[in-house]
Amino acid sequence: MPIVQVNLIEGRTLEQKRRLVAEITNAVVNCVDAPPDAVKVILNEMPRENYASAGVLYADKK
Amino acid sequence: MPIVQVNLIEGRTLEQKRRLVAEITNAVVNCVDAPPDAVKVILNEMPRENYASAGVLYADKK
Amino acid sequence: MPIVQVNLIEGRTLEQKRRLVAEITNAVVNCVDAPPDAVKVILNEMPRENYASAGVLYADKK
Amino acid sequence: MPIVQVNLIEGRTLEQKRRLVAEITNAVVNCVDAPPDAVKVILNEMPRENYASAGVLYADKK
Amino acid sequence: MPIVQVNLIEGRTLEQKRRLVAEITNAVVNCVDAPPDAVKVILNEMPRENYASAGVLYADKK
Amino acid sequence: MPIVQVNLIEGRTLEQKRRLVAEITNAVVNCVDAPPDAVKVILNEMPRENYASAGVLYADKK
Repeated sequence: MPIVQVNLIEGRTLEQKRRLVAEITNAVVNCVDAPPDAVKVILNEMPRENYASAGVLYADKK
Repeated sequence: MPIVQVNLIEGRTLEQKRRLVAEITNAVVNCVDAPPDAVKVILNEMPRENYASAGVLYADKK
Repeated sequence: MPIVQVNLIEGRTLEQKRRLVAEITNAVVNCVDAPPDAVKVILNEMPRENYASAGVLYADKK
Repeated sequence: MPIVQVNLIEGRTLEQKRRLVAEITNAVVNCVDAPPDAVKVILNEMPRENYASAGVLYADKK
Repeated sequence: MPIVQVNLIEGRTLEQKRRLVAEITNAVVNCVDAPPDAVKVILNEMPRENYASAGVLYADKK
Repeated sequence: MPIVQVNLIEGRTLEQKRRLVAEITNAVVNCVDAPPDAVKVILNEMPRENYASAGVLYADKK
């Protein structure tokens, strides 16, 4: 039942996503004793102009 | 004031979305006694490579 | 696979929550052709001082 | 550490986003005494057919 | 229609929350030309043991 | 910059949370090449009456 949402900048390869969801699912299964089937992972990809740190868009950082 | 977010795989038709938000809004109005105007629904569509169950991307499922 | 999150002011009874998740699940099953097992609903209850409309906390509304 | 997510209809200019994240970050820094570096802002843009109020899609409103 | 969710560590006073939602709402109204009524703000308060940076819970930081 | 939100049923020990955020952070660092400092994890704990699968509250499951 754990549902994990990952917000990250767009541009990862399919292979990176494949590994990311597999490793996060393992982490959840190991640590909170949930069956693998119950673990759902959502990747939310953001364009660089839709994320900011310290008030500055990622698209504007050098 | 209830705000509902629905995460679903992309590819629904406009007509399906139209019915989905209408029926969810009805459900909320009926069950928690909120005025219809106060109910907001956000649909968050995910590509098949951005959602995983049991550690496997939906795009990789047969 | 649709995952629904409902943000609402705290204070609903168990019976109201029971009906709400059942009706929302029905709406999703009817409209997007998902199997009932795949539909997950999260209720996120907020204290009245943690929600604002038009810049005013719900706790401060008359 | 405050993490702010803003759901809004798509179609803002880069300049509008730039000002929006700067002003929201200032608001957070002023009000909860967080260092600017710790404030993250995510903009989640929705197509007009993915948002509804009172059970009607924004795309269907006149 | 912009809906803003702010995740922050618990422990702010009512007065801090009051100012925070007012200033964030102003920022949104100024920058994306939304009517104040349409702006909703949700505060999601987290206990110190429910937030981590660099893999370390906030509750464990010195 | 990846920001991870984990929705799970309440009742984990502090030690379980400690391991969970550490392992998830490692997974993200390994798979998407982010510096550890940039990875934030939010745990959102839900009471058993605030989560449903197949239209039935977790609190009502045997």
